[in-house]
Amino acid sequence: MNFASDNAAPIAPEILEVIVRANEGFALAYGNDDWTRTLERRMSALFERDVAAFLVATGTAANAIAVAHCCQPWNSVLCHAQAHLATDEAGAPEFYGGGLKLVELPGDDAKIAPETLRAALGRGRGVPHSVIPGALSLSQSTEVGTVYHSDEVRALAEIAHARGLAVHMDGARLANAVASLGCTPAEITWKAGVDVLSFGATKNGAMEAEAVVFFDPQRAEGMASRRKRAGQLISKQRFAAAQFEAYLRDGLWLRLARRANAAAARLAEKLGSIGLKPVWPVEANEVFVVLPHETDQRLRQAGATYATWPREFLPPGTSGSQNDELIRLVTSFATSDADIESFVRVARGT
Amino acid sequence: MNFASDNAAPIAPEILEVIVRANEGFALAYGNDDWTRTLERRMSALFERDVAAFLVATGTAANAIAVAHCCQPWNSVLCHAQAHLATDEAGAPEFYGGGLKLVELPGDDAKIAPETLRAALGRGRGVPHSVIPGALSLSQSTEVGTVYHSDEVRALAEIAHARGLAVHMDGARLANAVASLGCTPAEITWKAGVDVLSFGATKNGAMEAEAVVFFDPQRAEGMASRRKRAGQLISKQRFAAAQFEAYLRDGLWLRLARRANAAAARLAEKLGSIGLKPVWPVEANEVFVVLPHETDQRLRQAGATYATWPREFLPPGTSGSQNDELIRLVTSFATSDADIESFVRVARGT
Amino acid sequence: MNFASDNAAPIAPEILEVIVRANEGFALAYGNDDWTRTLERRMSALFERDVAAFLVATGTAANAIAVAHCCQPWNSVLCHAQAHLATDEAGAPEFYGGGLKLVELPGDDAKIAPETLRAALGRGRGVPHSVIPGALSLSQSTEVGTVYHSDEVRALAEIAHARGLAVHMDGARLANAVASLGCTPAEITWKAGVDVLSFGATKNGAMEAEAVVFFDPQRAEGMASRRKRAGQLISKQRFAAAQFEAYLRDGLWLRLARRANAAAARLAEKLGSIGLKPVWPVEANEVFVVLPHETDQRLRQAGATYATWPREFLPPGTSGSQNDELIRLVTSFATSDADIESFVRVARGT
Amino acid sequence: MNFASDNAAPIAPEILEVIVRANEGFALAYGNDDWTRTLERRMSALFERDVAAFLVATGTAANAIAVAHCCQPWNSVLCHAQAHLATDEAGAPEFYGGGLKLVELPGDDAKIAPETLRAALGRGRGVPHSVIPGALSLSQSTEVGTVYHSDEVRALAEIAHARGLAVHMDGARLANAVASLGCTPAEITWKAGVDVLSFGATKNGAMEAEAVVFFDPQRAEGMASRRKRAGQLISKQRFAAAQFEAYLRDGLWLRLARRANAAAARLAEKLGSIGLKPVWPVEANEVFVVLPHETDQRLRQAGATYATWPREFLPPGTSGSQNDELIRLVTSFATSDADIESFVRVARGT
Repeated sequence: MNFASDNAAPIAPEILEVIVRANEGFALAYGNDDWTRTLERRMSALFERDVAAFLVATGTAANAIAVAHCCQPWNSVLCHAQAHLATDEAGAPEFYGGGLKLVELPGDDAKIAPETLRAALGRGRGVPHSVIPGALSLSQSTEVGTVYHSDEVRALAEIAHARGLAVHMDGARLANAVASLGCTPAEITWKAGVDVLSFGATKNGAMEAEAVVFFDPQRAEGMASRRKRAGQLISKQRFAAAQFEAYLRDGLWLRLARRANAAAARLAEKLGSIGLKPVWPVEANEVFVVLPHETDQRLRQAGATYATWPREFLPPGTSGSQNDELIRLVTSFATSDADIESFVRVARGT
Repeated sequence: MNFASDNAAPIAPEILEVIVRANEGFALAYGNDDWTRTLERRMSALFERDVAAFLVATGTAANAIAVAHCCQPWNSVLCHAQAHLATDEAGAPEFYGGGLKLVELPGDDAKIAPETLRAALGRGRGVPHSVIPGALSLSQSTEVGTVYHSDEVRALAEIAHARGLAVHMDGARLANAVASLGCTPAEITWKAGVDVLSFGATKNGAMEAEAVVFFDPQRAEGMASRRKRAGQLISKQRFAAAQFEAYLRDGLWLRLARRANAAAARLAEKLGSIGLKPVWPVEANEVFVVLPHETDQRLRQAGATYATWPREFLPPGTSGSQNDELIRLVTSFATSDADIESFVRVARGT
Repeated sequence: MNFASDNAAPIAPEILEVIVRANEGFALAYGNDDWTRTLERRMSALFERDVAAFLVATGTAANAIAVAHCCQPWNSVLCHAQAHLATDEAGAPEFYGGGLKLVELPGDDAKIAPETLRAALGRGRGVPHSVIPGALSLSQSTEVGTVYHSDEVRALAEIAHARGLAVHMDGARLANAVASLGCTPAEITWKAGVDVLSFGATKNGAMEAEAVVFFDPQRAEGMASRRKRAGQLISKQRFAAAQFEAYLRDGLWLRLARRANAAAARLAEKLGSIGLKPVWPVEANEVFVVLPHETDQRLRQAGATYATWPREFLPPGTSGSQNDELIRLVTSFATSDADIESFVRVARGT
Repeated sequence: MNFASDNAAPIAPEILEVIVRANEGFALAYGNDDWTRTLERRMSALFERDVAAFLVATGTAANAIAVAHCCQPWNSVLCHAQAHLATDEAGAPEFYGGGLKLVELPGDDAKIAPETLRAALGRGRGVPHSVIPGALSLSQSTEVGTVYHSDEVRALAEIAHARGLAVHMDGARLANAVASLGCTPAEITWKAGVDVLSFGATKNGAMEAEAVVFFDPQRAEGMASRRKRAGQLISKQRFAAAQFEAYLRDGLWLRLARRANAAAARLAEKLGSIGLKPVWPVEANEVFVVLPHETDQRLRQAGATYATWPREFLPPGTSGSQNDELIRLVTSFATSDADIESFVRVARGT
């Protein structure tokens, strides 16, 4: 009953297999290999335009290096107050960005509303006293398992672009969003105004494969140096490239994501049927519920793993007593029906 | 009718005079001079204990270098959302601190309440995912012209210290606060739990004299290098030291501050008498009022200078129409009665 | 005939196998897994004392984060002018270290001599004008395939420690050095005065496994945060830990290194026999020779891959014409006898 | 007998007087004042083209912020090994530049020769492994009191520009160089290829007045924010602007510099006549001589102040025993004939 995170799941068999296959003979290091070259072409095909893609070692690095590359150190990055960038990366954007500042915005369902963005851009005393907004960062899917529709992204991107901001998408769970929306990767990214994407595969079946994708390759000038000095240029890059290559080939990434999303939907439905309604709409692979402390204890004793979530993030007006816990359940391609059923059974307590 | 800021005022005559006096003959650069040595002794006498004081060129530098010196780059500094550090320094703390993060707290009268601090310290996922609170920064007097009483500082410092945070005081207007409170400098700083102080003289009559004061000199280890590499070691430091020396001699600093505070009180009283009640208590040398757009226009046409303040900072529930402006009026030792009277007369509009 | 670098070699079979094995079921991310816990114990056993080991994604990151953690931003790191840190990491130590400075020292065989270190430490105007030496970094084995003996390390470490410097060892090729010296890992590291080690497995058969090892765990305070914000905390860390675990189990790391070293020795001997004497002593897995431009062309046309090395690094007095090339040949556990023989045959040109 | 540095001299009377004069009434802070506006026009007139000039608090800040603004963090700045930037600023360029790297070049008379620059630009493994040269920094006058002729600057600037580097001039003592060369400020700066200038007045009679001058104002984009967040935007800037204004009015700056240069020439001549020949050509306001330890002791006992200089900087082949000291004597507009004569008399020892 592991619902701790999708990165607690194993490597998908197809991806493990490609690692073994990539291990034939010598291959020049630092990306001067055939797997990397193939991946570059595949990325461009996937997004229906020439892109510049840079593999990095972690999702935190992908986010931090992406926003740093779009900003001057005296810029701010506007993001939701629950964004991973803001809450879970120990200041990585600030470090990579030479001291840039995150401005955290509120918003229902962990999404930023256009009027919130517009108001935020209207604040401040101006140059040289205030930091200058430099980028907008959107998480897709969000930290609470919701997704932005392409018209929502477009509306935000238009506001951002009108003020000269770059638009970044944290796509650590992009696959879950695309699978949920049924759109193309192009539609939800550059066609909706996204300039740079953190594209993660690790949470959806890879061992370790994260990329930063610039939809305008010119925007990537200097990235090779920036990545190297960040210690993010992997020497045996063929293995990271191969993982991504297998991930994207024949739609594996969407098959894996659909499985994860379906598991979340099933889990949500069953929890709902025993009175544990999801706190936020279940649109990707995460389910949040509020449950009594006793239920939480019973589940943990039964061996279930999952994260307790800060109650301060609960929507205003959520009912519940002091005794309740807000918990996060994350599903993955590897989540079994049996685990879902066991979990719900223990939660029900009978 | 200049109420734009106390740093629009001229140099106080006693301080200008000491600059002239310090200009005799040669003196070794970089603080190896007699004026600096004298100042070090005076600072210790003023604060009733051995302190380590470092002159820097600006108030922004004083704040930024002080919090940077108390923190690791992965620390956060908790401050009020209206703190100068957070809104007016273009990311200086983030730059000096190698990417540290400011956490902005709400609070009436631009002051942080103990329960707000306690709640903020309870948030976050912990190491290694979250930044770690490293310092609390308090503005004294605050950005809205209120002051912390020593027991308020002590209550906050105790909470901070219990969690291992250092306590910084932004004393760009410390003189106004001390003059207002009628306490000793020691009582409102280290005796109340302050570890490091940005001590400004520039806004209260100096030409350019700012210091960072460590109440525990051991805490200052490395500061000489940190200041130099920040370009904050003034070569002809005798002149900055001399200004501070004159500022502190015979209580000049408090006389100047009392004059500024009295001017603010007078201005507030007269504005109140024509129906313009101060938005925040006038405890130092700043008066904020909400006035109709027409009044604002009339004042500006009459040559009054002052800052328009963001309406988002207005206390919830403040009455007023969309047509109103929130304005900030700052007084100084140089504010004349005539200017106050002219201002009120034009504001009254008759 | 791939002699480009040891990181062009494939994954050693034993290590690939453990990746497959580690892929069973769920495991908590970010190092909260059994493989990581096992590795921590193995590292301590290997070094015969309790150590604090931190996995990171790349060798560049290991070096940069290690020296950054031993230094203040106003410190310098003394290293050989040919050190990887100084020439090949695009400023990573400067980035991770908040602007620290590398001081490059000369020295025969890419090694620093005690008198050179002593002289370097005697320079500078002192605080606050000069940067302050904060760490000594030694490459083991060196960039030219030589090794420091433990008494050489000890002599340098004593000088460094006497001046308050930390001692870092860049052990990207530690295995080759230990295999060459026939000593224990403890003898060549902390017993000789090393405080922190970059311990690499990637160049010697791993897919991607690098660690920073603190011999005094207290010295590691804050490293968990520093690593996370650098984007160096790998989410599915079990796979990196498993690689290291297999690497160290039953002496695999030394068997692989001995194979690489033996291949270099064989290559050097055969090249010597055709008049191409190694420029530097072949003590690990690298061979440098000067050869005529025509020979270089012939080898490259035959498909040999290897690096051309800057002639400025040639020892003074090295004979050779303008027409010559200095080349670097790196061997690995995967270098075949056939490749060595082909290479020498083509080089001989008959 | 103070020859410690030109920044040990007092404020020139004309400059002190303007500070007094600027102290009339209120003036908006942060450069929104008439003195600043006047200075901007004067700077453009002085340099015979529209320039963007930014006042900062110290010479160290001017250098660091100038090179940082011309570089990315992964760039290097090439400078002479004796440059103030490299030896005396505690890593300020590295801090301001987000971890950029200084590459120190050798050269007679503390000047860089074209072939040295060309060779340095030819080194390195290239992107992404090596840092990329981003700027050339020239000190004018140099750290040993020599000057670059305009054709020397031009030759270096051409090499630099051809490789895409910006050219920075550290003009902490620009006045002494211009006075020595008898050229216009334009000829020795932008007409010879300089892109950005640190223009110092402090060492030549000001209290504290330093500027960064961009000859192409477009290059200055973002500087207002960069300066503010560095704590280098002086609040009562009218006083710094007024100093510079007086400094440049009616050629005061050159009159002061000529006096300093003449004093150095006189001192050098008289020292030469007693057998103490200057080590480097005396072209500005610094004289370096090697003297016996006993003479040094006698001078210090007589109250002379001056700096002992590292012997490692002596030109190869300089005669002298281990017992000798290399000393630096700096003159200023305030150096008296009497002091020169006393110094020489004590040095002669009779």
